[in-house]
Amino acid sequence: MSEIRKDYVTDTWVVISEERARRPKDFIRPRPATNGGVCAFCEGNEKMTPPEIYAYRNVGTGPDTKGWWIRTVPNKFPALKIEGRLDKNSRSVFTQMTGIGCHEVVIESTDHSRPIALMASWQVRELVEMYRERLMDLSKDRRFKYILIFENHGQEAGASLEHPHSQIIATPMIPVQVAGELRGAENYFTDMGGECIYDTVIREEIESSKRLVFENSSFVCITPFASKYPYELMILPKRHCSSFADCSHEEASDLASILQKTLHALHTILDDPPYNFYIHTAPVNSREFPFYHWHIEIIPAVSKMAGFEKGTGFFINSISPENAAVHLRSYGQESNAGADGQTATAGTNFRVPEAS
Amino acid sequence: MSEIRKDYVTDTWVVISEERARRPKDFIRPRPATNGGVCAFCEGNEKMTPPEIYAYRNVGTGPDTKGWWIRTVPNKFPALKIEGRLDKNSRSVFTQMTGIGCHEVVIESTDHSRPIALMASWQVRELVEMYRERLMDLSKDRRFKYILIFENHGQEAGASLEHPHSQIIATPMIPVQVAGELRGAENYFTDMGGECIYDTVIREEIESSKRLVFENSSFVCITPFASKYPYELMILPKRHCSSFADCSHEEASDLASILQKTLHALHTILDDPPYNFYIHTAPVNSREFPFYHWHIEIIPAVSKMAGFEKGTGFFINSISPENAAVHLRSYGQESNAGADGQTATAGTNFRVPEAS
Repeated sequence: MSEIRKDYVTDTWVVISEERARRPKDFIRPRPATNGGVCAFCEGNEKMTPPEIYAYRNVGTGPDTKGWWIRTVPNKFPALKIEGRLDKNSRSVFTQMTGIGCHEVVIESTDHSRPIALMASWQVRELVEMYRERLMDLSKDRRFKYILIFENHGQEAGASLEHPHSQIIATPMIPVQVAGELRGAENYFTDMGGECIYDTVIREEIESSKRLVFENSSFVCITPFASKYPYELMILPKRHCSSFADCSHEEASDLASILQKTLHALHTILDDPPYNFYIHTAPVNSREFPFYHWHIEIIPAVSKMAGFEKGTGFFINSISPENAAVHLRSYGQESNAGADGQTATAGTNFRVPEAS
Repeated sequence: MSEIRKDYVTDTWVVISEERARRPKDFIRPRPATNGGVCAFCEGNEKMTPPEIYAYRNVGTGPDTKGWWIRTVPNKFPALKIEGRLDKNSRSVFTQMTGIGCHEVVIESTDHSRPIALMASWQVRELVEMYRERLMDLSKDRRFKYILIFENHGQEAGASLEHPHSQIIATPMIPVQVAGELRGAENYFTDMGGECIYDTVIREEIESSKRLVFENSSFVCITPFASKYPYELMILPKRHCSSFADCSHEEASDLASILQKTLHALHTILDDPPYNFYIHTAPVNSREFPFYHWHIEIIPAVSKMAGFEKGTGFFINSISPENAAVHLRSYGQESNAGADGQTATAGTNFRVPEAS
């Protein structure tokens, strides 16, 4: 019997329908051919990108030259541009604004072929630091209401370049997806006399262990109860906090560790699948959001959104989050290598919950 | 400069960002290989599907035998099943229901390789009639709150079988996407003293012609002002009516005609692209929805939903609906053949608006 589940926070539902027992290999899809040619994100090709905004680089090296380990540059084909005035106009049912915002690219390392799952662990820590610094810097522009940090990995997940990179888009309004989470979280907070819904989720998921994938001192990684997509994951800080910008130095390090462990698990059991992840943090330049709890959502791009999902917003997921969690937790056993040499330390400090 | 546009009805936004002049050929993607083998939907293989629910067939032929021209059968791997009790339970933040509903497949014709774009026009009229009859029949089950009729065409749009077929899923709740439209339409109706927002859209779009693609006596086909996807289309009845079930016989015939014309235009200019379409009609077994206006949305599956769209619900569309409308209207000129012999009459009774 299939089951319909409601998202904790928003008023969206998902059908969990496992007609046939699904194993990770059922979700592995043929990989498209990679595009050859010169990579604008590789070291030595700094002049091929727009001038850099900010970089972590060796002392004495100048902007747009070699010597960096993480580099943030404007997107060459930005969806939204930073120059101009924010004009809004409405005529009858037609409302439009100028496309003010910004669109940056974070080049995650000089290594063209090593995604986060396989990077040196110090590099992932630096990347998390870069995300946080860009978020804080962009928040200063009062025209922006939201800043989304996200990664598209693999062509099927929308990445047009292979070299590991993330993107940051700042928008002049709070996006509908985030607005829905804020509304749901605020309602729960009000109804429960100041209790955070995400805190409840974390407590329940640690207690039951059924959907708990990884855990360290500061974070949990779970498969959400109403997962819309196969092997969907959520990383949440244990400490209640509405903004990713307020991470402590120790939390940032724990985040790097659990993010890499999670992406490495996906890499192993789904054979380097295409995926998207994004950070859901509180809006900027707006009111306070004491009821919100920032988190990261990770979505492997292994299923297709078809007419039913597009027409209803109601998803059909062919693997239960409980089974997905079992597969993900077991990844150490399925991969002989575990993490590669450079990431060998990424696994320390982890407690793998026992299967219930 | 890119532009941000708000959906007429819901509180969702889209970025129209045409960095490079985009032509239809930029959206043509390589087609995956078709799967060989015996087709369960072809004539003579009726025993390969679950027993038929309803069919249009020649007098004297029995169920699950040859002699039909449209056949509705249960989905062999249903997302939701019709048997069982509708149980809902909540514990803490976890709310779930049994997966009650139904999932049917409409086999659109006996011809394996002729999609709606290329079918005989009488066949499309019969198909629209079948949709309407199934909607009315399923509405009688009081457990269902919504019935979505949709088509996935092509593997990239989620179709797992090549033989032309549509699907019908009945759900025990009103889906979030529809709820958003109902809310937006009701707010407008209340604010404007009983004016329907879709009526306003139709009037404005006919007047300006900028996004009007096709029009006949009963319907318009437009590219929505805040189109989320390249070449997204919407077909709306000119007569205000909340439910597709209330179509007159003449309207059903005009609908078949404009639907085929529209799908044929897509077929021609985008080289038989994968697409989804679905009918948005009022919920069933609920209150009245005098402010709602049923319609069909058609979405070519030629772009990818990446991290930004998944994380925000805010879409980036790389072709403006005005340019998409120009390309779609010109399809008669781009294709030498126009509609093939069998569909030659599909184009009559159409007024192609002049480009503004």
